[in-house]
Amino acid sequence: MKQGGLQVSSVNIRKVTLEDAEGILKHSKVVFGEGRNLLTTVEEFTLTIEEEEQWIEKQKRANNFVLVAEVHNEIVGMLNATRSTRKRVQHLCQFGISIQEAYCNKGIGSQLITKLIEWAKQDEVIEKICLEVFASNERAIYVYEKYGFVIEGMKKKHIKFEDGTYADEYNMGLFVK
Amino acid sequence: MKQGGLQVSSVNIRKVTLEDAEGILKHSKVVFGEGRNLLTTVEEFTLTIEEEEQWIEKQKRANNFVLVAEVHNEIVGMLNATRSTRKRVQHLCQFGISIQEAYCNKGIGSQLITKLIEWAKQDEVIEKICLEVFASNERAIYVYEKYGFVIEGMKKKHIKFEDGTYADEYNMGLFVK
Repeated sequence: MKQGGLQVSSVNIRKVTLEDAEGILKHSKVVFGEGRNLLTTVEEFTLTIEEEEQWIEKQKRANNFVLVAEVHNEIVGMLNATRSTRKRVQHLCQFGISIQEAYCNKGIGSQLITKLIEWAKQDEVIEKICLEVFASNERAIYVYEKYGFVIEGMKKKHIKFEDGTYADEYNMGLFVK
Repeated sequence: MKQGGLQVSSVNIRKVTLEDAEGILKHSKVVFGEGRNLLTTVEEFTLTIEEEEQWIEKQKRANNFVLVAEVHNEIVGMLNATRSTRKRVQHLCQFGISIQEAYCNKGIGSQLITKLIEWAKQDEVIEKICLEVFASNERAIYVYEKYGFVIEGMKKKHIKFEDGTYADEYNMGLFVK
């Protein structure tokens, strides 16, 4: 199966390992540099490899879910879902996706979300998957809605860009139980 | 002026100081113990006085806004507004209020919010004040709406109580510029 010129079979989706620290850093610098769709700007992303390794270890200890998407052994996409540590919200997880622009519209986001939903359904505690997305990011919202996520609310003018313009933010949710 | 049996003149609203660490700890244990309106449960609140002092210092360094409400030299209420550190959201601040049940409905919340709005209006960067509140907390929502806050969105079943029941959460916002 081919989607947008990329062989889907050449995309490898797998759980993160400690050895991915450097690849994630490289990927993050690319996506933060590209984007009007992410909160963090590239200048603000200053993690070292050691800090990135600590982050990966922390996700493992917290039993969070982190996937990377590789093409030709390079990380080009990523999903990370975080559990809340407080009891009254431990039935929720919150996730974010980043995919390099050159690899968008090729089904990578769909593969990542499918695996996230499977993980959340099997989890004993999680009942709902939550996300936040810029209201202007129609492509992402389209994919989330395809998987059953519903827009529950918004934050007006939540993002202020460097040029002084604003974007609203939506929060979406999907109940898996 | 009297409200609900408490002399408003006997309530002292002031900025937090490092010496308040112990008083804030005592206050926090009371409100977290009382509440179906707060995310943190009392068992989860385990800060030491030293950690509370570090928290107060951190708020000062970050130029955040923290008020305490005292009655007879005891802290019975508190407001803290936090700036986001990332550039694209630095026009926002997010605040929370906690008032001991015995001191609710006495105008303390209104005094705290009035001072917050004054502070935010005078600030050079902040354009919007945000908050999150349990949808079931009608008393608080009534006060926020009185000051112009608008419900922008919600998170369905965002809170799961110890008895297995749920509450939605609203997010509200007020533009000060």
